[in-house]
Amino acid sequence: MNLVAIDWGTSSLRGALLDAGGRVLDERSAPRGILSVPAGEFGTVFESLVGDWMRGPGHPRCLISGMAGSKQGWVEAPYCACPAGLADIAAKVIQVDTDRIALVPGLSVEHDGVPDVMRGEEVQIFGAIALTGQRDGLFVLPGTHNKWARVNDGRVTGFRTFMTGEFYALLGTHSILSRTIDTQAPLDEAAFMLGVAQAGNNEGLLHNAFGARTLSLFGRMGAADLASYLSGLLIGEELRTQSLHAKGEVVLIGTPALTRRYELALHASGVASRTLGAEATWAGLHALSRTLYP
Amino acid sequence: MNLVAIDWGTSSLRGALLDAGGRVLDERSAPRGILSVPAGEFGTVFESLVGDWMRGPGHPRCLISGMAGSKQGWVEAPYCACPAGLADIAAKVIQVDTDRIALVPGLSVEHDGVPDVMRGEEVQIFGAIALTGQRDGLFVLPGTHNKWARVNDGRVTGFRTFMTGEFYALLGTHSILSRTIDTQAPLDEAAFMLGVAQAGNNEGLLHNAFGARTLSLFGRMGAADLASYLSGLLIGEELRTQSLHAKGEVVLIGTPALTRRYELALHASGVASRTLGAEATWAGLHALSRTLYP
Repeated sequence: MNLVAIDWGTSSLRGALLDAGGRVLDERSAPRGILSVPAGEFGTVFESLVGDWMRGPGHPRCLISGMAGSKQGWVEAPYCACPAGLADIAAKVIQVDTDRIALVPGLSVEHDGVPDVMRGEEVQIFGAIALTGQRDGLFVLPGTHNKWARVNDGRVTGFRTFMTGEFYALLGTHSILSRTIDTQAPLDEAAFMLGVAQAGNNEGLLHNAFGARTLSLFGRMGAADLASYLSGLLIGEELRTQSLHAKGEVVLIGTPALTRRYELALHASGVASRTLGAEATWAGLHALSRTLYP
Repeated sequence: MNLVAIDWGTSSLRGALLDAGGRVLDERSAPRGILSVPAGEFGTVFESLVGDWMRGPGHPRCLISGMAGSKQGWVEAPYCACPAGLADIAAKVIQVDTDRIALVPGLSVEHDGVPDVMRGEEVQIFGAIALTGQRDGLFVLPGTHNKWARVNDGRVTGFRTFMTGEFYALLGTHSILSRTIDTQAPLDEAAFMLGVAQAGNNEGLLHNAFGARTLSLFGRMGAADLASYLSGLLIGEELRTQSLHAKGEVVLIGTPALTRRYELALHASGVASRTLGAEATWAGLHALSRTLYP
């Protein structure tokens, strides 16, 4: 049976038509994230973007991950509590309109009375497990709100979110640092690693970020290098709080531009990593469909 | 001899006319921070705001602290390196136009190749030393860019800047948190202390800040309390990085709204504090004038 695999996020929708073996037959994307869809219009937008796939040979089923399953989405698919494996997720998918379209729930976890959540990343993690065969260890998904997830025996046992990407954008756009930082500059690995090392001083981001101001004030670093330095400060701060004694490699899932930075920072801490991209999403939705419709 | 004492900052100018004993005879302020003054116009603005004081009985001298001594100010007064006491600052004041007006230099220090700076706060610290008689310990000046300064035998031996106030504004105004936080709400001490305690988990601000999102998402905290919680997270993160084994009380210098928060957070760590306000600026400039013009 073919599968229409959809990653429907806040700002965009990405879709793939997969065959029974999980091979990608067709792919498309559109800037129709859930924020652009009026309430009640999700079915119409879905039909306009992938309706032809749904009417294709063998009447494919469809699985949708991401923010489309949030309160602001098509239908709410309540979070699945950790620890959670594919079977736990499968038990909590929510049917939409017909029994051929289902929304995948996100994951939740709680630390000391404070909840944490993910939506969409869980599918990428299960896809990475399927693609690599690595059923234990640390899975890291860089982005606006990065996720660090711990996997044991193929189940997500816990995770934490870090607002690293959003802080970088805030500081680079709206803070005093924005005047002397060129956030469009390409990565300078040396400046980035200086920032990673600086974050290890344990003085905290609130202090170290001001260093990106004074290094400019004293003419010690230019606007392009400062962007990489700030990125290093932020990612180094993330790593500072992590216990990196995971067995095996850390699995990085994301765009090359972001995963490269984590690879560099992890390598400096003596931690090996492997990297996966968008294919993890399709592999995850395919694995879930095999669990749901065996 | 009377003294015209001026704190000329980025967004405003505050002035006081002091008698020979340091008593305030008159005070005024204006929204004429250095960012509002075109190059070459500093003398004109000065004359319009306090020219009458300068022509008053006994031809007072004038000392100006703050950003007016920066590169973007009236005349640059290069930073004085730590350790620095009143005599070191006095040796580096810069005369302006006449020998009756002088700009006070800020302080600089360097940690592991990264400079740190203050401009204006050094005068408040020396004022607090004069007012309290406390010549050793930790002096904390909350604000957009907070300063934590170490004082030994009446000299500032080192300090660190924390962008706490600016991060609070960034997160409350421009981040995803801004949608569910009421930054105009009055302080809720219980929610604030929850944030302070949470920062002690050593998971870092990048993670803990996301908790202010999920606590709202799960309906566990309202918009007013979340503002206090976020403030607690930030101030708690500052305290986390500090060695608070100072002898004697921590001296807090700033507005009641801000110093109250540090007082609460320090008290929870078993550290006593005392608080000074704007009077520290006038006392500092007065003490400096006694060193300069004995």
